Amino acid sequence: MEKNRLDQQFEFFREIDKEKFIGRQTYLSDAVRKENDAEHAWHMAIMTILLSEYANDEIDILKTVTMLLIHDIVEIDAGDTYAYDEEGKKTQRQRETAAADRIFGMLPEDQAEKMRNLWEEFEQNETLEAHFAHTMDNLQPVMLNAATDGKAWKEHGVHLNQILKRNQITPIGSEVLWKYSLENFIQPNVEKGRIKKDERS
Amino acid sequence: MEKNRLDQQFEFFREIDKEKFIGRQTYLSDAVRKENDAEHAWHMAIMTILLSEYANDEIDILKTVTMLLIHDIVEIDAGDTYAYDEEGKKTQRQRETAAADRIFGMLPEDQAEKMRNLWEEFEQNETLEAHFAHTMDNLQPVMLNAATDGKAWKEHGVHLNQILKRNQITPIGSEVLWKYSLENFIQPNVEKGRIKKDERS
Repeated sequence: MEKNRLDQQFEFFREIDKEKFIGRQTYLSDAVRKENDAEHAWHMAIMTILLSEYANDEIDILKTVTMLLIHDIVEIDAGDTYAYDEEGKKTQRQRETAAADRIFGMLPEDQAEKMRNLWEEFEQNETLEAHFAHTMDNLQPVMLNAATDGKAWKEHGVHLNQILKRNQITPIGSEVLWKYSLENFIQPNVEKGRIKKDERS
Repeated sequence: MEKNRLDQQFEFFREIDKEKFIGRQTYLSDAVRKENDAEHAWHMAIMTILLSEYANDEIDILKTVTMLLIHDIVEIDAGDTYAYDEEGKKTQRQRETAAADRIFGMLPEDQAEKMRNLWEEFEQNETLEAHFAHTMDNLQPVMLNAATDGKAWKEHGVHLNQILKRNQITPIGSEVLWKYSLENFIQPNVEKGRIKKDERS
């Protein structure tokens, strides 16, 4: 019985190795290579541990960290949908739900259910931990974009209103961190012309 | 005051981005690209959450996960020392201690002390959490080496006695996981000649 359970767990661990090949649009601090999902999750997990003191309400740190570590695993099947890809977003939910069923379903039933529910909790964004996880998921790439002089923003011609729309949920997890992000990462790059000021619908 | 604290924290987050460029000797499951430290840490963090049920004694999961997420940050300055590089190991401690002082020292004092102590706790390997973290640190690359038909073992001409020596501490964290690793990952690869059987001192 234990052997079978371990086999299922290790099948899952080998499968999620593929997350290391899922590329994102964010450049790393060298401004040359782009980040992958595993690196992104690692970075946010550490940030959560050290920034949870700024959460609007007290959060369960391990739960939030776990949520962030696993939330992009669905992209192994569904691919990464860029924050400002409005076409891709139309099918994103359906693609990701099927992926969650398949990949988390590899685990023993109790763990499959727990991880699947945690992924769904992130998606629904109705709990304190999900709120803070979304704050991290928006803050980390903005930090890296700012650190690379807005390279990804310039390449994609990103407009301020797009960033503000995506970040509507950021202050729900942490007012303090949203204010810091706006003042230190976003506004200076608007002023320098790396984020476009005029509206794009 | 809060601004200054946040500035220190974000300086640290930008600095540790460099861990994504620290290469290891383990091949990913595609058997082409090698893993980096951030990917390795992400993988072990998830494994810890799902495998802690096999720890010899009950562990604090968040503490163990945090330890694993940060334990290789020192390699930003000190580089990765391969498990079987006996020359490199002679100066490893001194190089990594200086790195820990510098990098964790970027954080606000309370967090710097906490993270520096957690790194030292991993190094000293005297607590339950450190024991389990070392089990993960040995198990994860062995799993990937087995998944890639022993590619890294073959390239480095690794001998069974080297693997057994390194893994002397693995069962201290989890007897069950060491047994699984030995029977499913190591022994089959000795039988297939991917790990050398004869002794090397």
